[in-house]
Formats: sequence, C-alpha cells, structure tokens
Amino acid sequence: MSTIIQSRIEQLRALMQQSEISAVVIPQADPHQSEYLAEHWQVRQWLSGFTGSAGTLVVTADRALLWTDSRYFLQAAQQLADTGIELMKEGLPETPSIEQWLCAELPAGSTVGVDGMVFSLAAVRRLKSALAASDITLETTFSPIDKIWSGRPSLPDDAIFIHDEKYAGESASAKINRVLSLAADAKADSLFISALDEIAWILNIRSTDVNCNPVATAFLYLSPGRKVLFTDEAKVDDKVRAYLADAAVDVAPYDSVSRFLALLPKSDRVYIEPERTADTLSAVLGAHAVEGASVVALPKAVKNDVQIAGVKNAMARDGVALVKLFMEVERRLQAGESLTELDMARLGTLYRSQGALYVDDSFEMIAGYGPHGAIVHYSATEESSSEIKPEGLLLVDSGAQYFDGTTDITRTVALGEPTPQERRDFTLVMKGHIALATAIFPEGTRGDQLDALARQFLWKNGLTYLHGTGHGVGHFLNVHEGPQSIRLNHVNVGLRPGMITSNEPGIYRAGIHGIRCENLILCVPSDLSNEEFGKFYQFETLTLFPFDLKLFDLSIMTDEEIKWLNDYHEHVRKTLLPLLENQNQRDWLTAKTQPLCR
Amino acid sequence: MSTIIQSRIEQLRALMQQSEISAVVIPQADPHQSEYLAEHWQVRQWLSGFTGSAGTLVVTADRALLWTDSRYFLQAAQQLADTGIELMKEGLPETPSIEQWLCAELPAGSTVGVDGMVFSLAAVRRLKSALAASDITLETTFSPIDKIWSGRPSLPDDAIFIHDEKYAGESASAKINRVLSLAADAKADSLFISALDEIAWILNIRSTDVNCNPVATAFLYLSPGRKVLFTDEAKVDDKVRAYLADAAVDVAPYDSVSRFLALLPKSDRVYIEPERTADTLSAVLGAHAVEGASVVALPKAVKNDVQIAGVKNAMARDGVALVKLFMEVERRLQAGESLTELDMARLGTLYRSQGALYVDDSFEMIAGYGPHGAIVHYSATEESSSEIKPEGLLLVDSGAQYFDGTTDITRTVALGEPTPQERRDFTLVMKGHIALATAIFPEGTRGDQLDALARQFLWKNGLTYLHGTGHGVGHFLNVHEGPQSIRLNHVNVGLRPGMITSNEPGIYRAGIHGIRCENLILCVPSDLSNEEFGKFYQFETLTLFPFDLKLFDLSIMTDEEIKWLNDYHEHVRKTLLPLLENQNQRDWLTAKTQPLCR
Repeated sequence: MSTIIQSRIEQLRALMQQSEISAVVIPQADPHQSEYLAEHWQVRQWLSGFTGSAGTLVVTADRALLWTDSRYFLQAAQQLADTGIELMKEGLPETPSIEQWLCAELPAGSTVGVDGMVFSLAAVRRLKSALAASDITLETTFSPIDKIWSGRPSLPDDAIFIHDEKYAGESASAKINRVLSLAADAKADSLFISALDEIAWILNIRSTDVNCNPVATAFLYLSPGRKVLFTDEAKVDDKVRAYLADAAVDVAPYDSVSRFLALLPKSDRVYIEPERTADTLSAVLGAHAVEGASVVALPKAVKNDVQIAGVKNAMARDGVALVKLFMEVERRLQAGESLTELDMARLGTLYRSQGALYVDDSFEMIAGYGPHGAIVHYSATEESSSEIKPEGLLLVDSGAQYFDGTTDITRTVALGEPTPQERRDFTLVMKGHIALATAIFPEGTRGDQLDALARQFLWKNGLTYLHGTGHGVGHFLNVHEGPQSIRLNHVNVGLRPGMITSNEPGIYRAGIHGIRCENLILCVPSDLSNEEFGKFYQFETLTLFPFDLKLFDLSIMTDEEIKWLNDYHEHVRKTLLPLLENQNQRDWLTAKTQPLCR
Repeated sequence: MSTIIQSRIEQLRALMQQSEISAVVIPQADPHQSEYLAEHWQVRQWLSGFTGSAGTLVVTADRALLWTDSRYFLQAAQQLADTGIELMKEGLPETPSIEQWLCAELPAGSTVGVDGMVFSLAAVRRLKSALAASDITLETTFSPIDKIWSGRPSLPDDAIFIHDEKYAGESASAKINRVLSLAADAKADSLFISALDEIAWILNIRSTDVNCNPVATAFLYLSPGRKVLFTDEAKVDDKVRAYLADAAVDVAPYDSVSRFLALLPKSDRVYIEPERTADTLSAVLGAHAVEGASVVALPKAVKNDVQIAGVKNAMARDGVALVKLFMEVERRLQAGESLTELDMARLGTLYRSQGALYVDDSFEMIAGYGPHGAIVHYSATEESSSEIKPEGLLLVDSGAQYFDGTTDITRTVALGEPTPQERRDFTLVMKGHIALATAIFPEGTRGDQLDALARQFLWKNGLTYLHGTGHGVGHFLNVHEGPQSIRLNHVNVGLRPGMITSNEPGIYRAGIHGIRCENLILCVPSDLSNEEFGKFYQFETLTLFPFDLKLFDLSIMTDEEIKWLNDYHEHVRKTLLPLLENQNQRDWLTAKTQPLCR
C-alpha cells in the first residue's frame, strides 16, 4: 500500500508542477461540507491511505503531511507508516495549524492550490487571509484529482425515498415556509442550501448515498415562487417526483446548479451559510448572496413531539437489541466460543435489524477490546480485529437509524474481574456522566459551559479526554448534527428544549484500555423556572440500557450519584422488561439493573 | 435634575438636526476604551444623568434610550425617572441590541452619528455593517459635545510617577523589548497602544487621572528605533522625563498623536488592537496598520514572582484593615451608635490607608445593606445611604491600590440572627465559590468553561446571577483587566499560571437581599500534571479574611466543602494573627475563624 500511496502523491506533484502550485490542501470534504462522504469524494483517503473520518492532507514538492485530531492519532500513525506522509497531531500545543505551517514553509510569492468546490466560502476566506500575510496566493480552481484517480467512483445514484410525516411530525411545505420566513427575517428573498441533512430534513426525504447517513446528494434552492432540488434525476422515481411536486419543488440535474445560480436575477438576495456553501458556488452568486448562520440548523435540531415520541420508541427497540447482543457476548465467552471485534459489529447489526423500523446502522460500530478501546474512533478491520477474551474491558459504541429516530450508545463492560484502576477510571467517567445528566441551567446556557461538569472529576485526578462530551443527534438523520454541542471549544447557540445531545465522557489510556459511557439526552424545561430568575432547562435521558454494575467504585460516589444510577436502572428495567421475548432475557436484565448500595 | 437632562438632550437634538443626523450613539468611553473614565469623558453621564460605569445612550429626534446591563437595572431606573430616557435592559432575551433597535426604528437612508475618537475601529465596523444591512449610513465625525457642555472638565493633568521595579519585578526596557518582539512575530515593525493600563504596565508609570485606576492619560508608540509617550507634558516632571529617557522614550503632547501617526512612513507596519484603538486614529494609519489582539494584555496578566509576592503582602495588610472595619461595625451596632453605608466606605478607606504602601481604593466601596445588597454595583450616595441596623444582611465589596498589588474582596455578613433563606442562599453561593477555588483543569482551559462550576448549585435551585464569576485583576493597576475572565460569555484565552482572577458568585433577590462572596485567586501549576494527559493548573486563594460563620448551612455542604472552609480560615488566622495590633483584634479573628463541624 505504501508504494501505491507514494506513486499517487508523485502524480499529484507532477500536476502541481505543471500548474505552478507550491502546495495543495486536500480536505476531507465534499461540495456539501458533509462529515461523512460518499465514495466519490474520498479523495483524501484515496491519496493518503488514511481512512479516518477527519483529516486534511497537505502536499508540497518535497513533503506530504496529514493533520488529524486525537481520535485518530494511533490509527493515522499506523496507516501512514512508510507512506512518507508525516502525521500532524491537531490540538497539541506544539502542532502548527495548516495555515501557520504553510506560511512558515513556503517562500513569499508561492501559490497554494485548492478545489473551491470542496472548500467552503468561509474556509477559503480564512486560508486566503492567513496566506496573504505571508504573500502567498490561494488558487481555488486547482482540481487535479479526476486526472489521476482512474476508476474514481461515480456520484451516488441511490433512490430517494419519503420520510413519512407520521414519523417526521411536520410536512415539507410547513418546513419550507418556516425556513423561508427565517430567511426573510434576515432580509433575504431566497435560500440556497448545500448541507445534505438540512435538505433531507426540510423535504422529508432520505436516501442511502452515504454509509449510515440517510441523506441524498443534492442542493436545494427555495424562494416563495420557485423551489428546485438539484439531484441526479435517476434518484427520483415517479412517486417521489409527485410528492415533491405537491410541495411545489421542481427537480433539476445535480450539475445544473451552478448555471441556475448564475441565471438568478441580481435582485434576488440569496441566503447562504458561508461555512457550508462551496466557494465556487458562492462566487457564482457574488454580491447578491446574503451570508449568515444556517436558518435550518436550529429548527432541525429542536425536535417536535412526534419526533421525541418516536425516538423514545426507537430507544426501547435499541435497548432490546443490546440485551441480545451483550447476552450473546457473555454466552460465547462462557462457552469458550470465538468472539472477535468484527463479530460484535455483525451481531449488533443483526439484532438491531430484527427490531421494527430499522433502516441502517447510524455509524460503523466501534467495538474496542482492551488497548483498542483507547483508540477513540477505532473501527475493527479484518487485519486489526481482536479475539475477545473473558478479561479486561470492552468498549462498544454503536447506534442505528430507525424510521422513528436515530440512536447512539456507548457501554464499557468488564469481561473479567475488573482491576481497581479500571473501576476507578470507569467511576470517574460515570460521575461526570451523571453530573451532566442531572444538570439544571438557565435559558441561553451553551454546551461549552456545561462541558466541565462532565470533566471535573477526571480533571481532579490529572485525567482528561480530548473529544467533545456531547454532539447533537439527528432524527433518522446524521448521528452528528449541529448547531448545539457540549464540548471544550466555543459553541454559538444555547441549548433549547427539544434538542437531543449525546452525553459521552471517556478516558483513554494508550495501550491499556478505553472507557466511554454514552447516553443520548433530551433538553426539557425544568419545573424550577420562576419569574425572578427566568426559565431553567434540564435533561431527560433517552437511552435505555444498563451500565456495567461491576465497574462502579461506590467509595468515590456520592449518595445522590448512586441514587441516580439506581433510578436510571429501574427505569431501564421497567421499560424494557415488557418488550423482552423470553424469561432468560428478563432474568438477565433484572440482574443487570439491580440497585447498588454501599 | 430631570429638566436639566431634558434640556441637554434637546440641545443635542438641535445639533443633530443641523447635521442631518437621525440618531446619535453616546457610549461610556474615551479614546482609550477605558472602563472607568476621567471626568472630561463622562459625556454619557452628563447627558443622561445615569452615573453607572456601563451604559450607552441613543438619542433620536423623538426618543432617547439608555442600554445598560443587569448590574445597573435598578439604579438606572431610579436615575432615569422623569428624564424621558427609556431604560433598555441588556442581556434580557426581549431587549434588542442597539444595532437591531436602530435598524428597526430608523427609515432607510438615515444617518447615525458617532464620535470616532470614542468608538474603537472594531466597534465602528460592527455598527457600520449592521446599519448598512438596513441602508443606514454611519457618520463617524459627529462630536457635538463641546458645543453644548459648557464647563466641561479639562483633560486630566495629574503628575505621572514611577512604579518602582522593586514592586513591578521587570524594567520598562525589558517589557518594551518583550512586546516589540511579540509584534514582530505578527510581522509588524511597531506598536501603537491606546489602552491606559497597558501603557502604565509597559513603562512602569502610574498617575491619578482616573478615580481608583492609577493610570496616566496617554498614547504610546513603540518601534525599535523610536518610542514616544503622548501625554500632557505638564504631567511629566524632570525625574519622570529622565526615567523615560533612560528607556529611550520621548515625550510629546497628547494631542500631537494624530499628526505623528499621519507622518509615519507607509513602510512602517504598525500593530494596533482594533477593539482598543479609536476609529479616528486607525483611519489615520490606514493600510499600514496591522490588526490583532493586544500583544500586551497577556504578558501584563501573567504576574511575575515579585508581583505575586507583593500582592500576597498587600492581601495581609488588606485583611488587617478589614478586621478593623468589621470590628468597628460590630462595635457600633452593639453600642447602638449610628452607622450608615457611607460610613462604611469612609471607614474602609481610613483603615486601609493606615497600612503600608496604600495609594488609593481600587474602586468605590459597595456597602449594600438589606435590599441595597441586591443592586449589584450599588454605591451609596448622600441620598441613598441607609442606616445599618443589627439585623439582615450587609454586602461589602471593596479593595485598594497598594504599591505592591491591587485587592478586591466581597464579604456578606449577617448583622442579626440569619433566616433559613439567608443561610441557604449564602451557602449555595459558597458551594459555588469553593467549587471554583478547588477546580483543577488542563492547560488551555478558559474561564467560560469553569464558570458553571460556580453556578451549578444555584442553578439546581432555580437561581442564577447575571454578572461574571471572575474578572482579571491588575497589579497596582485596574481592578478589572483582561484578557482572562470567568464568565458566561465566551473568552478567547486559556487561564495560565500567574494570572489573578476574582472568584465572586452571588445571588440577588430584588427588594430583599444581595449575597456575594469574593476572593482573588491565582492560577498555579498543579502537581497532577503528567506525561500522558499533560499539564494541569489549579488556583491558590490570595485574599485573607474570614467568611461569616453564622451564614453556613452545613446540612447542604459536603465534608470536602467544610474542610476547605476550615483550612482556609486556619490559613487566614495564621497569616493575620501576627500582624494584628492588640489582643481584642486577635480574639475577634480567632473567634471568626473557628472550625465548623456538623
């Protein structure tokens, strides 16, 4: 593999030389700034061999470097070995940003090349301005990949299907009116939307273009008088076409979007989100673009009552599948049968698919056994997949896409008798999990303000984790969505009732074990709201599956923490018991949800 | 007063009409964007009658409005009564920003006027861009005040004095080299500094131009070959002139700064901070300004060992003065003698001035008795000053400027037998205070991430406070300084060892009582730092004075919290006892620092 990568990089360098490009920046991105990409846009992966979901490749005439974040430090180091590509660890104090590195490395007068279709307007601006300070020019039309990637996968043409209003809780027409009204508040006449999950949400459509992310590759233009979905017309059957026509949405070819935008009257003030709109397309709109934060993200993030009821049902079915999965793990280990990390992933998909309304997994299961648990976004491959034994810790992060909701849960279980360090680490993580789950906070509070509640106990022991504590979760949509999140970095929006976020603190000891405890939590109004001090919100935990009782160290827990855990387990037991098929399962769940006491 | 205010506003309106200005924005600001202003720049106060330290007046042809924050809601309502000026409560969800209000109120084609000398470059840009979206023009040369304010106080001409290196810990020349080197890192040749505390810090000079803020009104230009302090030359005696000459700093008239900047060669890339540089002056620099965050703020905020040792000594003297103050409060109340809020302020200044190295108070004492305690930045006047009685709560927020450091402390004491609600409120505040005081956190953590630790217990009871939890504190400089702070809003910089911040959660029940508990805390390295998870920091509490033992409700405190309190009181007792003059004082302090137990 390493010589193939080296040869691809050399071909890229030849094209760079022809175009007098000193450095090229290859992001993990598509024209929609998606987090997960259809095969067609896996350019960075194809060029570098690194398969992580986040990372940017920079190639100059004599160096190649890949920036990625802490989730992928170990994986990237393995996959980049012998490729000549250097790993740049984002987030560490000593690591320069890509801009800083380019400014330090390239002589004044150089040109950096990027493909403006996979760079957002905002990203191009930031890069251009940082480079300009060192007299380096940014060329945004450098797109050499088609010339060197023979056999590049074509654009996805999977069928679009309708997400029924009985699950979505609101019609496409109603959503179109809502977002157009928000655009009008920003003095725009129309909206141009590139984000695939926003398009799927507005129109109540889904597809299977991107693994685990039920979106359709498309752009959407909305104005009071004209609505156009730009997508591969092969994706739209008669039923979907009629459905869209009912909402007054026309269908046009995906690649006609640029021409369409160019022909819009200059008087049409088109609202775009600079962080999600391709630089190339925003350049077509030029001065009649109105820029602002997405007007779709917030309405999409605040779930309606139908969605909330749906996701609670989905959680119950997800919990039943997990009972089957973890019972099977225990059975195989007790019986001395083989069980690998890859088996876990297959079994998880199998049991989930036995439940109603299952469509897909919501991401590839992370089953990390022992030291693999410390690789934050580890995903087992045929080469890496470990045999799981009745000892040590197993971290299982998984989820599914159901028609009535999206799930995402992580449990860490002890397969043998846990060590004191395992119990202490686990309990410190759980204390943070509980602190966040039980937080109460005034209207306007942002996730970055609550993040420390989940970290405080780890911090007091000289421990931390570098990933966020909670990401927004879509409704039968992307398992990661904004605008809210609970994390170290600044977040712009306050948490609001109806938002679903994960609660997943963790601790990762390289080469030893990884622990993460994740439930999804729903922001709800608090009874404590009062006239003098205003509205208060809190969280309702949605996920339904027990934490491993063996891993709690009660000596470092407060009475309130133990009570929270026992109450949660009682709720899990009462909700799931009636749904379990047989007495073995009921006995297993009852044992796993016994109250703990000192 | 209200008719005087109305007449001033009418005179302003006449000048607005002459200049075809539809609205004028009058900030609480000077050409240095100081928080506290010399009399000369108290334009907003003179025009509105509102004396608070934060607030912006907007006047149109038929309306006048004052925006201010929650600290001043009650005070502003009182002072604006019958003036015709409407109060706009900043920070409440229903209150529009000034920009939003202007856009909604003024017809397209209007012109808004401001004085570009008291608006920063960044503020002008924000306002201009917000107004442009509604086709409103911003005129930045509208400065009518001299025409209507007869008897306007002249610019301050108080003498400059030298802050000895034995207190500052670093010479002016060394600081000049440090900040020029930071400017060079940003590819600038020179620095133009407007912030008065930054100038005072760099040059180790002080003055008394601004009440409680020991700064000199000046601008400073620094380049490797030329250093000029622009200030009223009457402020500079021969000794100071010779001292400045030793550091190669020339003195030039304050009002020559604009001409000087205009004559700089265009090749001189001058570093400025857009948030602190007057729009008018930055316009003179034009394209050869290099913009960026202050390169002075961070070096100034990170105190050196001499400063830290100094402030610890100052804290001990401050504690002694407070022992005298609170003993005198108790004596007068027991003796049935009169005691008013204004007496408190006079006594505080008296006792502090009896200690060594005292220069001034660091702000006007806030002695708020009963309901006055709920007015967050209350300052007693002859009209408002309450008689203090042996019942209810008294909140006392005060501090001093000593040559070796700046202090700022708030104590809330029960003058009679406290009610259960008073004890509960106080204890919830103290639980937050202790949580912040004992926090441990990794390198890079910002104050806005820690803020919730101080609020969590109030939040869980449906209570909150709208001010920040902690502000940076200067060293014999402004009692409020950046760049760090611990607050709800986003902060850009991480906390670093050497930074001093306040820790002052509170709770304010309008018409009932106010509670605030404030110590200053120093960020220090933690022993928990380790190779795998990096550097950790924690706080060392600097302030030395007991909290009122009568106000603690032990039933809602953890063992760890009680231990922290007892340890803190033991430290206070051991440090202050040897410094107290007589046995009465020693007995009083010993009684006030007795350990609490369940």
